[in-house]
This record gives sequence, structure tokens and C-alpha cells, in this order.
Amino acid sequence: MSVIHQSHAELTEAEIFRAHQGGKLRTHVPASPLDERSLSAISTPGVAAVSRAIAQDAGLAADYTWAHRLVAVVSDGTAVLGLGDVGPAAALPVMEGKAALFKALGGLDSIPLVLETQDVDEIVRTLSLLRPSFGAVNLEDVAAPRCFELESALIEALDCPVMHNDQHGTAIVVLAGLRNAATLLGKPLDTLRVVVHGAGAAGTACARMLVSAGVGEVTVLDSRGVIRPGRPGLTPAKADLARLTARPGAHGGLADVLPGADVFVGVSSSTVSEELIAAMAPQSVVFALSNPVPEIAPELAARHAAVVATGRSDLPNQISNLLACPGLFRGALDARAHRITQRMMLAAADAIASIALEDLAADRVVPSVLDPRVAPEVAAAVTSAALEPASRAARPRAAMSA
Amino acid sequence: MSVIHQSHAELTEAEIFRAHQGGKLRTHVPASPLDERSLSAISTPGVAAVSRAIAQDAGLAADYTWAHRLVAVVSDGTAVLGLGDVGPAAALPVMEGKAALFKALGGLDSIPLVLETQDVDEIVRTLSLLRPSFGAVNLEDVAAPRCFELESALIEALDCPVMHNDQHGTAIVVLAGLRNAATLLGKPLDTLRVVVHGAGAAGTACARMLVSAGVGEVTVLDSRGVIRPGRPGLTPAKADLARLTARPGAHGGLADVLPGADVFVGVSSSTVSEELIAAMAPQSVVFALSNPVPEIAPELAARHAAVVATGRSDLPNQISNLLACPGLFRGALDARAHRITQRMMLAAADAIASIALEDLAADRVVPSVLDPRVAPEVAAAVTSAALEPASRAARPRAAMSA
Repeated sequence: MSVIHQSHAELTEAEIFRAHQGGKLRTHVPASPLDERSLSAISTPGVAAVSRAIAQDAGLAADYTWAHRLVAVVSDGTAVLGLGDVGPAAALPVMEGKAALFKALGGLDSIPLVLETQDVDEIVRTLSLLRPSFGAVNLEDVAAPRCFELESALIEALDCPVMHNDQHGTAIVVLAGLRNAATLLGKPLDTLRVVVHGAGAAGTACARMLVSAGVGEVTVLDSRGVIRPGRPGLTPAKADLARLTARPGAHGGLADVLPGADVFVGVSSSTVSEELIAAMAPQSVVFALSNPVPEIAPELAARHAAVVATGRSDLPNQISNLLACPGLFRGALDARAHRITQRMMLAAADAIASIALEDLAADRVVPSVLDPRVAPEVAAAVTSAALEPASRAARPRAAMSA
Repeated sequence: MSVIHQSHAELTEAEIFRAHQGGKLRTHVPASPLDERSLSAISTPGVAAVSRAIAQDAGLAADYTWAHRLVAVVSDGTAVLGLGDVGPAAALPVMEGKAALFKALGGLDSIPLVLETQDVDEIVRTLSLLRPSFGAVNLEDVAAPRCFELESALIEALDCPVMHNDQHGTAIVVLAGLRNAATLLGKPLDTLRVVVHGAGAAGTACARMLVSAGVGEVTVLDSRGVIRPGRPGLTPAKADLARLTARPGAHGGLADVLPGADVFVGVSSSTVSEELIAAMAPQSVVFALSNPVPEIAPELAARHAAVVATGRSDLPNQISNLLACPGLFRGALDARAHRITQRMMLAAADAIASIALEDLAADRVVPSVLDPRVAPEVAAAVTSAALEPASRAARPRAAMSA
């Protein structure tokens, strides 16, 4: 721990800005050295043969352009980190960071596209017009509840993998970590009582993912308390969530539902008191994922909980969607999938969990973001899930939620 | 010559497709090796400081993102090479080739964006919404006359350099080559009689550029003959051209205007007979730029003309817009220019011409596309022209056209 602590103590503002100077991405040409021969092959006259071939058979674009390997990292800048609606220009360094890490961690090529509009129809139209330029869309930092509508509309409009990373990337890693924590503590997944605090992009997707993976009971709270059927003023997304998750009769705030719960998942940018954490079931699990300040200081949570995780890169058990994401898109593109399915996401969670299982411990329920095994193993699992015939896939999925 | 010829004889279809396999571009992360420290700097928590700074001062985006160094290489796929309207997917390998060569020849980062629409308003809207994602727009392979309207509309809508390469890139290199040919032959530019055959994107821009550089007389022909005031059915672009170029009384076809002319510039994808070339003035100049088949075989033209150039990479005197283009955008971005001006284009032409002047010969009126001096010298000249106060710039420009 001291090494990590030391490195962070030294990270100055000047050093941060230096790391972003001139941007963090470049293009690169992997071809052999440029001479008259290669020039003739990659530009006129050679390239005409390739264009002609694609004009006759559109499927060849996947072989002879970078589009089918390329992810558009798209944001309107409305929910950037904890900063909120800072706009597309201020979102760009974050999107460049994602693209840089997709490359560095998973060998995945991607380009940041930030948009000067928050209108769902305009964003859908823009990406539809650009469709031949890329192979998949990774949405980032779009505010809830618009992010749900935007993701659905893009999945509908584009015949390629589309995923809102803040929702599903996070949910996949939460599931992976929770699966391993449950194994470590000897508590079967289907017996767990989970409280998700926060019903934005991440909270909503986490709750849905945990339900779909067969977690015993999931209760979701927003700033107004438990999300339950009939609560006045629910958005459509929250009304769905209420139907999916609420235990009959559950209501009130954290103080009403956290005592006795096995798992706390915090994705709310708020706080939870040590007393409430102390009131959870024995051998409890606390994922305090708000960034950069967790809902409760990890050392306080650790006095009461058996497993503690955060979203911070300088602490153990970092729940980062970077564990899911270059690998998930890589796997989807390798399979030439047109959609990212629930089955592919569950396969990603399993792959992440499996890697950590090898030396499972309370402070190692997920692998390190820097673990080089993660992206290739997630990609392989996702490709298999995408290519698996639906009939064969039914069984493991049923087993998973049993 | 034999080496060049030999290399081309060996360029097989299989080799061409191999050079395009998987696409020709990658993203690249120039940062130091990824560890917990650099991860914290380029993603959370470090990147939040950069986003916050840009949200407060939008100008900082130029320092801390790649956008101000990045060119969007944009096409709707309507005039791809000599293939015509093959659509955006089939245009993508050409755009990737441009982006790859911008990088390899000029160190310029660019991303291909191909568009599933031919509607000028939709293209303008799309690029306006994406505006914070890039620093300049290089239009390619958009059909005339729509390319003129599109370029004007984009210049109007976007506060960044926008240029249609097929027009101005080509025109800049034609001017550079013609300037050197004139020097070699001892014919002052303002005494030259030039015939431009073809009034599409390249022909129109070449004619305008030559007039603006002070060439004595320019006559432009399309498939219906000399473009002159009052000719029925002229498009707005051609009517402009007629006002700008036509000698009073000039009319008819090539057979009427080429005899006695000093310079032939072919950008028409048609042919010109050896007899007509033979009828040109003594010490004539033939730029037969149609690709891949020049308007007249260079060896036939060389029987009569003192200087012969083509658009082919396997022949001497290649008039390629790659001589203008990575350097021109590089220079404009380095100067943080909001526009590409005529002055910047003339400076680019001068810089290209100057390099070839060092060992000027009939088969070396322009430098090789592979000459590593070209992009940096063009960039430096363009930056100077962009930063030069208008008052100081007036003199050299006047001198140039005198």
C-alpha cells in the first residue's frame, strides 16, 4: 500500500496537466516504410481496386478498412465525472483518456466524438450519418435519465454494438466483484440482500444486472428514498426499476433498508454513516463507488464490512468500468456482433471474476485495471457468448440465475 | 526510371489488398508506460482538473486535447478517384489512405469521417455538432458543383480551417509546378497563355489560382467547350469562372484554343491528341493530370512539349495534392488560424516550388511526394503567411501578380 500512497502523494497539478499536454492520442500508420511502392498501394492507383471491391460488396469494408475495429467514444458532456454538465469541449480530455486506455489496456482503436447538442434525435441522426466511419459506439458521461432514451434510440437506429459505459460497464464490474465477494464469504448470490444507493446511469444498470444475474433481493434508493411502485413522480426508467426490484412494503430511506442487508452499492455521490454500515448483516460487503470521494472512508467501512471496494485507482478493489470495456467492445467487434446482449455482458462479468478468483482475497475481489489478462480474456468470453447459438446459451444463463 | 518501373510491374492485386487488410490506421498513445501513477493522471482523478480548467477557459482545449492538432478527413463518397459516386463505405479506404499519408508525410493527425448523406445542410449540421472534436476539415472526393456550395457553407458555419483538397490542394501544386516550368523555360508567368481542360473541382480551382497568381491568360473548357460569359446553361460556379478567365471572343473546343498556347492543364478524364499538343507554342508545358490514365501518354507529349507532368506516382513530375496538404493544414493549425486564405495557399505553392528550384530540371519541376522537406517547409510558410499582418502581406502579393 505504501508504494501506491507514495505515488499519489507526488501527483501534482503540474504533472497532471503535463500528462495531457497536446492531447493523449495520436494516429499511427502500421504500414511498412513509405516508398513509391507502398505509396502506390495505399493511395492511387492501388486504393481504387479496394474502393471498387467495397462498392460491389459492402461486407468487404470490414476487412479492408479500420471501421469494423473502431469504436466511437461519444459524449455530449452532460455528466462528466463528478463535474456535471461541463459541455463537449471540457468532456474531450475524458473521452481522449478513455480512448487512450482502450488502446493501452485492450489494443482497441477508438476516436473521441464530442457533440455540441443534448438533443436525442440530433445525436442519433449525427451518428447514423457517420455510421460507415466506425464499428461500435461507446457512450460516456451522458446525464440520466436522457442516457436511457439515447442508448435505446441508438441501439434501434444503428446496426452495430452500442453501449453506455457508465451504465453497463460499471454494472458488469460490480457483478464480477460481488460474485467473488459472495464466493469468498460463502454466501450464495441468490441469498444476498443488496441495497443500491443511487438511481442514475450506474445505479439503474447495476440493479438490473444484479437482478438478471440472480441476486436474491435488490432495493434501489434515490435522493427521495426507496424506489417502489406507486411512488409519485417516478420517471419511466425508475418506474421500470420499481417493478423489477422493490420488495413489497419496502419504503423509506437508507436507515430503513440498510440494517441487516448483505451488500451496499453506493453510486450516489452522497454519504453513508458508519453507524448504518455497522448495522448491516455480518460479513457484509460495501462497494462505495462515488469518485473521487467514496460514500464512506474505506478504513471506516472496513471496521464492520468483510469486503470493501471503491472506484479509486489508488485503493485496492477498484471497481472500474475499464475492466469491462476495452474487452467487451473488442469481443463484440471480433464476433462481428450487431448488438451487445445481456448474455455478452454476463460473460464479461464472469471472465473478470474468474481472473480474480485465482488469488481471491478480501482486498482482491476484482483484478487490477492494469492486469494484462483482463482485456483479452473478457474479449474471448464475449466473442464466445456472441457466437454461441441461442439454444446452447439458454442453459448457462438459466443456471446463473438459479 | 527502371527501378520505378520494376516496382510497379510487381504490384499485384493481392499485394494491394494486403496493404489495406484491417485498415491502414491505428490510434496510438504517446504517453509513458501505463502504471498506477499515469493511470491516475490521464483518467480519474487527474483528468477532472483538466476538464474543470477547460470548462472555465475554453481556449485551454487547444493545449490539453488533441482537437487543435486534428483534421477531420470528410467525404460523402460522391466523386471517389475516377470511380464516381461509390458511396461512403467505398470511400473510406481512400480517406484512410489520406489520413495515413498525412501522418507519414507530415506528422499530421487526422481521422476519416465518411457521411451517409449528400445533403449540404445535413453535412454542415453534422460537422457543426462535432466541431469541438477536431481542429480543421479536409474535404475529399465530393462531386462538383455541390463541392463548391458545401465548402462555402462549411467555411461559413465553422470557425476553423476548411478546405476541399481536390480543388485547392491540386491548384496549389499546379501553380508550384507551373512557376518552376516558367522559370526553367524563361517564360515570365504573366506572359503565359494557359488552357485548363476540365471545369470540375480541380479545374475550377486551378484556373482561379493561376489567375490570382498573375498568369497572363487562362482559358477553361468543359465538355461543351470554352466557358465564356453568356454561354447558355452555365452553373453559378462556371458563370463566375467565365467572368474571371475568358478572353474576349474565345470560343469553341480544344482545337480552337490549344494551338499556340503555352500550357495545357488536363483535369478532365478525357483525352487530347498528339496533333493538338504539337500545335502548341514552342517550349510548351503539358500537365496531363487525369488519373490513372493521363489525357495523353507522357512519352507522346514529350515529343513536342518541353515539360510534361502527370498525376501518377510512377512517373516523374507527379502533381499530387499530397505535396500541399499535410503541410498546409499543419501550418494553419500551428498558427491557430480560423481560415485558410488565398495568401496561405500562395505561400504553400511558393514553398513547394522553392524546394524543386534547388535542382530544377524538365523532369523535376515539383519535388517528390516522398521528399521529407516538403511538409515542414510548406507548414512553416503557411504559418508565416497566416500570422503576417495584412499590411505587410499586401506587398509580396502585389509583386507576385505583377
